[in-house]
This record gives sequence, C-alpha cells and structure tokens, in this order.
Amino acid sequence: MSAFLFVTPTWDGDQWANEMKKALPRHDIRKWPAIGETADVRYAAAWLPPPNVLRELPNLKVIFSLGAGVDAILSDPTLPDNIPIVRVNSPDLTMRMSEHIVMHVLMHHRQQARILANQRNKTWDSFPQHAASALRVGVMGLGVLGEDAAKKLAMLGFQVAGWSRSRKSIYGVQSFAGAEELDAFLTRTDILVCLLPATAETDGLINRAVIKKLAHNGPLGAPVLINAGRGRQQVEADILAALESGELLAVSLDVFGKEPLPNDSPFWSHPRVYLTPHSAADSEPSVICTYVAQAITQFEKTGQLDNLVDRTRGY
Amino acid sequence: MSAFLFVTPTWDGDQWANEMKKALPRHDIRKWPAIGETADVRYAAAWLPPPNVLRELPNLKVIFSLGAGVDAILSDPTLPDNIPIVRVNSPDLTMRMSEHIVMHVLMHHRQQARILANQRNKTWDSFPQHAASALRVGVMGLGVLGEDAAKKLAMLGFQVAGWSRSRKSIYGVQSFAGAEELDAFLTRTDILVCLLPATAETDGLINRAVIKKLAHNGPLGAPVLINAGRGRQQVEADILAALESGELLAVSLDVFGKEPLPNDSPFWSHPRVYLTPHSAADSEPSVICTYVAQAITQFEKTGQLDNLVDRTRGY
Repeated sequence: MSAFLFVTPTWDGDQWANEMKKALPRHDIRKWPAIGETADVRYAAAWLPPPNVLRELPNLKVIFSLGAGVDAILSDPTLPDNIPIVRVNSPDLTMRMSEHIVMHVLMHHRQQARILANQRNKTWDSFPQHAASALRVGVMGLGVLGEDAAKKLAMLGFQVAGWSRSRKSIYGVQSFAGAEELDAFLTRTDILVCLLPATAETDGLINRAVIKKLAHNGPLGAPVLINAGRGRQQVEADILAALESGELLAVSLDVFGKEPLPNDSPFWSHPRVYLTPHSAADSEPSVICTYVAQAITQFEKTGQLDNLVDRTRGY
Repeated sequence: MSAFLFVTPTWDGDQWANEMKKALPRHDIRKWPAIGETADVRYAAAWLPPPNVLRELPNLKVIFSLGAGVDAILSDPTLPDNIPIVRVNSPDLTMRMSEHIVMHVLMHHRQQARILANQRNKTWDSFPQHAASALRVGVMGLGVLGEDAAKKLAMLGFQVAGWSRSRKSIYGVQSFAGAEELDAFLTRTDILVCLLPATAETDGLINRAVIKKLAHNGPLGAPVLINAGRGRQQVEADILAALESGELLAVSLDVFGKEPLPNDSPFWSHPRVYLTPHSAADSEPSVICTYVAQAITQFEKTGQLDNLVDRTRGY
C-alpha cells in the first residue's frame, strides 16, 4: 500500500487530509504522528517537521511544500539529502498573491486611509492625486509570484522594477540583479514590495539602512513597504522606528517574525500599518491537493517532477 | 486674436486657466463671465454653462468636455446645434478610473473591511477567501473607461461580463447588449460596476428592482455595487433599503444625486459603504489641457476632431 503522509504538527490538518483523500483515492492518507508502517510512505507534505521523522521513511520518494516558501521544510536539520522537494506552484496561489499586492499598492497610492478618515469626518475632499505613472514600485524577488505581481502593476501604469539574484527579462519591468545593484534599485523605489524567499541572504534584509536608501523625494513624500515574503526578512524594530521618524510613510505587513503576531505588538494599532494575518495567498486545500495529486500522477508515469527546490539556493 | 473660453461657473478655474495658457500659448485664455469680444472665441470648455452663453459666441468652432461625461454640457437647453462637442479621452483619465475600479473590486472581494476590523480588535484570523475566479464582475457601460476596467479585472482573474447598448468584442469579457439582455447580465453578476454615461435611459437605472435581479447566491453571500458613473443613475433610497435588507452586501459610491454629498446623508457613516468624493478619475489639469491643445492643433491643421460626442445618443 502506498501512503501519503502529512507531517504538519502546527496545522489542524483534518481538512487537508480529507481533500487529499479525494485527490489521491488510491493512496492511504496518514497524519503524523500516526505514521503506521513507515515503509508504506512514498510521499510526504511537510511544514515544520519534527527532527528524524522524514529521515526515517525508507521509501520516501518526494517531499511536497504546500506553499511557495520552503523555509519550514529546509529548517529540519535531519532532512534527508537525497529526496526531491517540490514546491506547489499553482496558478491559484500566484493569482491570489497578485490580488493582495495590487490591492495594497493601490490603497497606498490612492491614499485610501485618508479617504476613509474623510468619510468618517464627513469631509468631501477631492484632494489632488498622482497618476500611477508617477510612482515607482520595486518588487524584490522575481520568482513566479514576483513576476506575476510586477507585470500586473506595470499594466496598471506604475513604473515597475524588480530585484533578483539573476537578471530577468520581463516585459515592462526594469531588472536589477545581485547585491551590487541593490542600492540603485532601492534609490529609485517609492513603494517596496517584498516577495523574496526566506534564505540566509534575505534574513533581516529589510532593515533601517535599506529603508533609508529608498526614494524619499517621491510623490507620496516618503516610501512605503509591503512585505508578503517572510517575517524573518524584516527587522521589526527598524520598521517601527522608520514609521516614527517619517522615513516610511506606511507599511502593509502580511508576515511577522512571530506568528500569530503577539497581542502586545505595536503593529496592531499603528495608524499607518495595514496588517494581514499571513493570508495574502491562502489557496484552498482542494486546489493544492489537486496540484499535488497531478504531480504524483505525472511522477509515477514519467519520473518527472516540476518546480523542484534547489537546496543550495534555499528556494 | 483667437480665444479659448472656460464656461465653468461652478469651478475654481484659475489652475485650469493657467495650465491652458501654457498648453495654448498663442490663444487668449478667458474665463466666463469675462468673455471680452465674443467674436474672438473659437474654442470653449464648458461645465454646467449658463443658458445663452455658448449660443452667443458667433465664431465658436469646438466645445470641449473636460471629463468623460458630457451630461453637464448637454443639459444646457440653449446649446447651439451645429457645434461639435469633443470629449477628453486621455489615457490618464482611463488609467485612473481603472485604478479606482480595480481597487474597490479587490477591497470587496478580499473583505478589506473585515480585515481592518480584525486588526482593530487585534484578531489574527486568516479566514477562508475565494479566488478571484469564483467572482462574477459585471461592468455596465463599455466605453473607453468600461472596456479598460473590464480587461484589467479579467486579467486579475475575475469572471467579467459587460453590458452595453451594442454588442462588444473584448478579449476575456462576455458581452451582453441592449435592454433585452439586461436581466441575463444582472442575474450572473456578483459585483456590479457602473461606468455608464448619463442619459435619459440610464437615469435611475440602479434601483431596487435591478438590485434584486443581481446574483444572490454568489461567494460573497450578497451582491456588491460600485458606481463611478453618475449620481443620477442611482436611486439612493433604494440602495440604502437594499443595504438594510441584505439585498446588497456593500457599495462603493463615487457619485451622488447631490454633490457635495449633504452632511445628513446616511451614506457617510454606513458601515458597508465606501464613499469617495467624485474623485475616481480626477486627471491633472495639465494633462487635460495638453490633450485639448493637441486636439486644437490637429483641428487647425486638418479639420479633424476625434472623440466627438453623438448628441442623439447623449454620449
């Protein structure tokens, strides 16, 4: 009997297991810690797996990451070396992330907080606004998610650039590449969007020094930060200090160093913070499970796997 | 001396006059009521012109409407019959309107009001959300503005249909045409976007009967209305009643029967109303004046005028 194992201790996995049963009717769907016979397990979906669980599955063929980020799998120090890791790259997840990014860029651009305050105060104030073409959006990370968001922002009229490890060719999007072009990317950016993978290089990248390099002469008066990558990438004390000093006009944060965000975090009630609970791109379990089932069917027929994670890059 | 006359009694026209002086340096720029020698006036920009002002300009060649809607010109009962009316159709105005429509569709779709309330209450609640592909947006009016908004919404993944007088062919957008297809259009629509011109046929179109025909079994539970056309098109008491009864989930209104919206309007403080002060697509005067100057240059060279208003259609 071939089994599919969820190793997702921090999740309430019942809905996932039910959807996977529908998507993979010929496999036995199991949930850690109820592994059963370890030799049965051919496939696993993992999120913060406890040490030695994946390592002790002698017939494991593929590990699936159920989101775009694989940091919660790579953090297992006992992760077996020779098992391919597949990232779920469903169009559904990409489309949802772009919805989130486009909406937050537009809310900052159109000054939705000011409009809402005017409404509360019954103030009919049609204040002057800039066209999207006056704003320079910079997307850090041009993987599948970053590329899609960048294209959609360009199509809405924003001046869009992207920053990534290697140079990219995306219609309508200026490409900056590598550490040596980071400063040039930051200094031309009014709205910084972070969609980077979580790696050692990106840990703590969004800090006070980086914020100071953003464009401070743009149409909004001060730059805006939108992070939908990973909380590890932002130095939260630096972001709060930059909001206080006026080095940041406003921020949209979907991810935090500690999630759920603790009750005493100043982000909750800061008037220039849009806070979302790591919900920028929550795919429905049914969509993700269908994706995984199709990948398994293809793998069993052809031996081919798409969207493999490169462990040395970390994404 | 050729003169350009602003007949815009309800506007503070100084900024407009200054921009027009830069754009048309060889014309004398005048502002009603300081018309001067009427025989000089070859071009006029009008908004709610007083009766007989345009009629008494013997050498008037073109009337310009400085926005997409021409109802405030056609409402002049003494409007001279034989003078062409040109609508400003600048890409800037179109892009801004699409920003507004896309942002409001996304805010309803992603339940931004619920997310903000959760933030205020320090509630980390990643509630399930539908993909854009689950929502059916219906755009009433497929002129330059409606077509651009519809295309951008389709590109974000929404199921988009449009309704217009004549059938349109727009990639990714289902076309409904004429009074006989209005009901079919409404019953498939979860989010209704109104970008119609103000004509006798569209006056009062958004009423209780029309609202009742919208999709009431969609993913949001009840339909949403976004009006950025004209206030005349909406029956405001019907919208309020539909919000109360649950026939409408929420609305975004940029236009009102009376503007500025009176202080005692219940729309200001309704929790399910996003209110904007007729600011969905305010172009900068410099952009509009450049557009008008280019149209005049082309007209003087070739006799050709683009974006002519059809008075019998009313737009």
